[in-house]
Amino acid sequence: MNKNIIDLQGKLEALLLAQRDNFHQGKVADYIPALAVVKPDLMGISVATIDGKVVGAGDYQHAFSIQSISKVFGLVMAINRIGDSIWQRVRMEPSGQPFNSIIQLQSEKGIPRNPVINAGAILVSDILTSHFSSSKLAFLTFIRKLAGNENISIDNQVYLSEVKHGHLNAALAHLMKSFGNIDSKVQDVLSHYFTQCSISMNCEQLAQSLLFLANKGIDPRTEKVICSARDAHRVNAILSTSGMYDQSGEFAFSVGLPAKSGVGGGLISIVPGYGVICAWSPPLNHYGNSVVGMNLVASIAEELGLSIYH
Amino acid sequence: MNKNIIDLQGKLEALLLAQRDNFHQGKVADYIPALAVVKPDLMGISVATIDGKVVGAGDYQHAFSIQSISKVFGLVMAINRIGDSIWQRVRMEPSGQPFNSIIQLQSEKGIPRNPVINAGAILVSDILTSHFSSSKLAFLTFIRKLAGNENISIDNQVYLSEVKHGHLNAALAHLMKSFGNIDSKVQDVLSHYFTQCSISMNCEQLAQSLLFLANKGIDPRTEKVICSARDAHRVNAILSTSGMYDQSGEFAFSVGLPAKSGVGGGLISIVPGYGVICAWSPPLNHYGNSVVGMNLVASIAEELGLSIYH
Amino acid sequence: MNKNIIDLQGKLEALLLAQRDNFHQGKVADYIPALAVVKPDLMGISVATIDGKVVGAGDYQHAFSIQSISKVFGLVMAINRIGDSIWQRVRMEPSGQPFNSIIQLQSEKGIPRNPVINAGAILVSDILTSHFSSSKLAFLTFIRKLAGNENISIDNQVYLSEVKHGHLNAALAHLMKSFGNIDSKVQDVLSHYFTQCSISMNCEQLAQSLLFLANKGIDPRTEKVICSARDAHRVNAILSTSGMYDQSGEFAFSVGLPAKSGVGGGLISIVPGYGVICAWSPPLNHYGNSVVGMNLVASIAEELGLSIYH
Amino acid sequence: MNKNIIDLQGKLEALLLAQRDNFHQGKVADYIPALAVVKPDLMGISVATIDGKVVGAGDYQHAFSIQSISKVFGLVMAINRIGDSIWQRVRMEPSGQPFNSIIQLQSEKGIPRNPVINAGAILVSDILTSHFSSSKLAFLTFIRKLAGNENISIDNQVYLSEVKHGHLNAALAHLMKSFGNIDSKVQDVLSHYFTQCSISMNCEQLAQSLLFLANKGIDPRTEKVICSARDAHRVNAILSTSGMYDQSGEFAFSVGLPAKSGVGGGLISIVPGYGVICAWSPPLNHYGNSVVGMNLVASIAEELGLSIYH
Repeated sequence: MNKNIIDLQGKLEALLLAQRDNFHQGKVADYIPALAVVKPDLMGISVATIDGKVVGAGDYQHAFSIQSISKVFGLVMAINRIGDSIWQRVRMEPSGQPFNSIIQLQSEKGIPRNPVINAGAILVSDILTSHFSSSKLAFLTFIRKLAGNENISIDNQVYLSEVKHGHLNAALAHLMKSFGNIDSKVQDVLSHYFTQCSISMNCEQLAQSLLFLANKGIDPRTEKVICSARDAHRVNAILSTSGMYDQSGEFAFSVGLPAKSGVGGGLISIVPGYGVICAWSPPLNHYGNSVVGMNLVASIAEELGLSIYH
Repeated sequence: MNKNIIDLQGKLEALLLAQRDNFHQGKVADYIPALAVVKPDLMGISVATIDGKVVGAGDYQHAFSIQSISKVFGLVMAINRIGDSIWQRVRMEPSGQPFNSIIQLQSEKGIPRNPVINAGAILVSDILTSHFSSSKLAFLTFIRKLAGNENISIDNQVYLSEVKHGHLNAALAHLMKSFGNIDSKVQDVLSHYFTQCSISMNCEQLAQSLLFLANKGIDPRTEKVICSARDAHRVNAILSTSGMYDQSGEFAFSVGLPAKSGVGGGLISIVPGYGVICAWSPPLNHYGNSVVGMNLVASIAEELGLSIYH
Repeated sequence: MNKNIIDLQGKLEALLLAQRDNFHQGKVADYIPALAVVKPDLMGISVATIDGKVVGAGDYQHAFSIQSISKVFGLVMAINRIGDSIWQRVRMEPSGQPFNSIIQLQSEKGIPRNPVINAGAILVSDILTSHFSSSKLAFLTFIRKLAGNENISIDNQVYLSEVKHGHLNAALAHLMKSFGNIDSKVQDVLSHYFTQCSISMNCEQLAQSLLFLANKGIDPRTEKVICSARDAHRVNAILSTSGMYDQSGEFAFSVGLPAKSGVGGGLISIVPGYGVICAWSPPLNHYGNSVVGMNLVASIAEELGLSIYH
Repeated sequence: MNKNIIDLQGKLEALLLAQRDNFHQGKVADYIPALAVVKPDLMGISVATIDGKVVGAGDYQHAFSIQSISKVFGLVMAINRIGDSIWQRVRMEPSGQPFNSIIQLQSEKGIPRNPVINAGAILVSDILTSHFSSSKLAFLTFIRKLAGNENISIDNQVYLSEVKHGHLNAALAHLMKSFGNIDSKVQDVLSHYFTQCSISMNCEQLAQSLLFLANKGIDPRTEKVICSARDAHRVNAILSTSGMYDQSGEFAFSVGLPAKSGVGGGLISIVPGYGVICAWSPPLNHYGNSVVGMNLVASIAEELGLSIYH
């Protein structure tokens, strides 16, 4: 291990120590029982860089439910599959409303504001469901390949919980269907959506699997093109303006990086030209973002001077 | 003139040529007579860099009404004057609504979503009105100093037009006042706001005067600290998520730079670590952004690889 | 036939004649194919009085899809079954929004504004589904008894059409379910709701079956108590403020009677202390109310001086 | 005094006694100091009938600020002055939103939902300001004539308070002006509006002055035509669907009479063909309606069987 890595490792451990007690400031997601049982004081962070470093601290190898972070992978898959035509069915504007709001969706005729709010991700799920013979398997295969790990899998208890408590997402899907913006059966679309939300991964896997977004679409380890440079740019832009739900502006303001959070407590942040940070701590603030996760990413970004707004 | 400058100059001229006929795609602002009379086929662009280059093409020295671009200067002045307490009176989130929407302002109790929509800029005007003995003069002085030009002045006809047709802005101001979020008299606040909107500047002056935002708060020509590095970061973040009205997400997606437009047809774009681009062409799209201005900034950003999302 | 009846008959025929060409001003509902095929120039009117008169003109014995008129029967059944506790799950305020709006439903936490907009009627359907072993049969039995006609039945083609195109209603149901305001399975609730909407009746049957609302809850023909006087009052009040969708205020203003319309072109109007008017003509205005139906009720109400606002 | 009157008198006194302690359930309006100082335990009721009875109990001759009850008089004046053209500038639909909401007003392009929410009454004030050389005097003259009392006057302290704290109303007026739906100067319109709101009257005066609405437009004492029968009908219809702010549906549901309340604690209720009830008690519920006032009107309406919905 070289000195850079040792330094970074030390920094991450110091940051974790500083955040040790802050998990009390949030509340573990409890809208589904399967998420509510996670221990609140787990926390981990991992940094992967495009020049090959992978460093982690705390529970960075402890798997958690990726939830909305799956929206990033789904979006890339959908763009790869149907190209720019996706932007006729979903926009790329911040919503200015909570992630699960149905209000805007009706007044804007079933066109979601962006692909990383729930309505938009359900629309992306419809694209995948309609264009892959087995979209769930295709999704899992895509993620496993990116993470370089064949063992990544779906947490079936989370999945069943999602299905049972997924009435708001069902409402969003039916509303889009009523406007003609869903092609597949609502039930199939939701089944795909809940499946991708129920995947379990750890910080290290997530950080590595998203390196292509920091590297103009190319996975730096395999040198494979995962998406075009233009689409990597676009995904990063969307994550910058809309990735942190209704706190996206504040995250840009105080941290300054493209990011996506999930209610499982995970948070990934892309640093174009450098790498990916993934933090995890289950307790959420009232926007649905991990309290400690945000603090961790904010601290490391500031310490390393990573902000894209300088 | 060195080779770099000659190259950039050539690029700008080529871009202008390519956009020559596109002004037909927009419509000059006509909500006030004083703006409606501007010739639609004028267009210019200027690039100023932190290492001292200043290059322009077309009507880059033709003065126009800066309108909402003034919000950037006002915001910096207000932050400098009252510090972080400003963020208790205005948020930093994208609004997801048209720039002059009064709807969100009522449901959010008179707290504007961000300082670059109209409500937010009126709130900033209240801060300036309340904290400077002569806020209009202070504003003009600040801009003149930044641009290094004592002749920058207010277009009185535009000002009078604004006052006469400013009922929607008056509604926003009174609504905030009813929630206790305006300290000065509404009439005085609006008078300041309309004054700063009525200032005339050209592309070259605007590009140069905002260089400090690309340079961590320091004006590279004078080496004076205009604002803290942290506040330059914050302003750039706000311009990235909210500077282009309800098209901010699309601008991030397709261009990838902090920017602010005005209904006078001007558009400034900050490139952290590099410089500032200012484009001008009066005809606007239905979001209120200059059609040709956006094309010009998009083209030069792509050609020079300036996007912050890579 | 006595003179009063002959006079009223003549009036109704004259009114129909005067409206003969006005069906061109509306548009037959086409959101489901089964409704779109109805002949647009059919029109009928029937008046039933509490003292036993039943008069009709035109196609008053031609059956049509009662659609939202079924909401009146469902509401009475639900009140009879669970009493005042219904008002903890649905309000009695005008909505100020289109009948199928999902916007208010989210901001008001899944509590519908009143029982005669779609969300409210779906909630009522949930009560019926949850409290009757076979709610569809119970509904049909209730209506047949009121109309004194065992042959009233469900139009199966309309029902299948409703199910196929019912995604907006499914969205409303799932949204209420997500707020915990639906007890039964969404699929069962919708099946009941679409069933009651798909019942076919004619003007004469509808006018007679609702006489109890004009007679303090008592069916004047059988002297049976259908509901309490207080609940008849309440239903009439709701029909007065909310029965004509987003045109309820205008209907009160220009006609002045409790009323309920359906997208099948039917319109019933209660005249407390006098009787019930039912008009039918398929073409609708953009609020979803029958153009000719409204004209017919307005004319007869004015001619006979029936308005409750004098 | 005949027996009927003695009976009614006794009923009113019994009702007041029954409500004696209920003023604790509400809260005196405190948005302006001049209203906040009124004693909360004052309460009165008066009934005037079209056949000449005038009965009162409690503080029925104690003057109070009529506030929004003035909207009824203003509406009648405006209709009389400009006829049906008023309905091109204001609608007659329930708003479904709080009385002072600016949200709907923007989305509906400056056309208020009805003339008895604030925006609508300000629009009516614009009509009066624009069509009378001295609209304030004309208003006062109209009311004095209706009440048969030359001493009715404006409470100047209330007026000054209204002006000082009237920023939300100013916002509504400027917003309508921005849509071109206000002709006079905003300042003049507001001055008229605040003036009419600041008139002081007592229960007896209010009940008598509105008898024409219960009598097809004719003042039964003078036999003068105050407005057409059609317009009396229309005003009653509007008061039925919209007169009690966002509680109008509930008032129709539980009481069943056209009514208008004011934040001064007054409440008038029209009984077509019978007379007018006016109750007063300052403490308000959270909708802005007098708690005890509503109870009083509800009780007397039930006891005498006055509901228009039977």
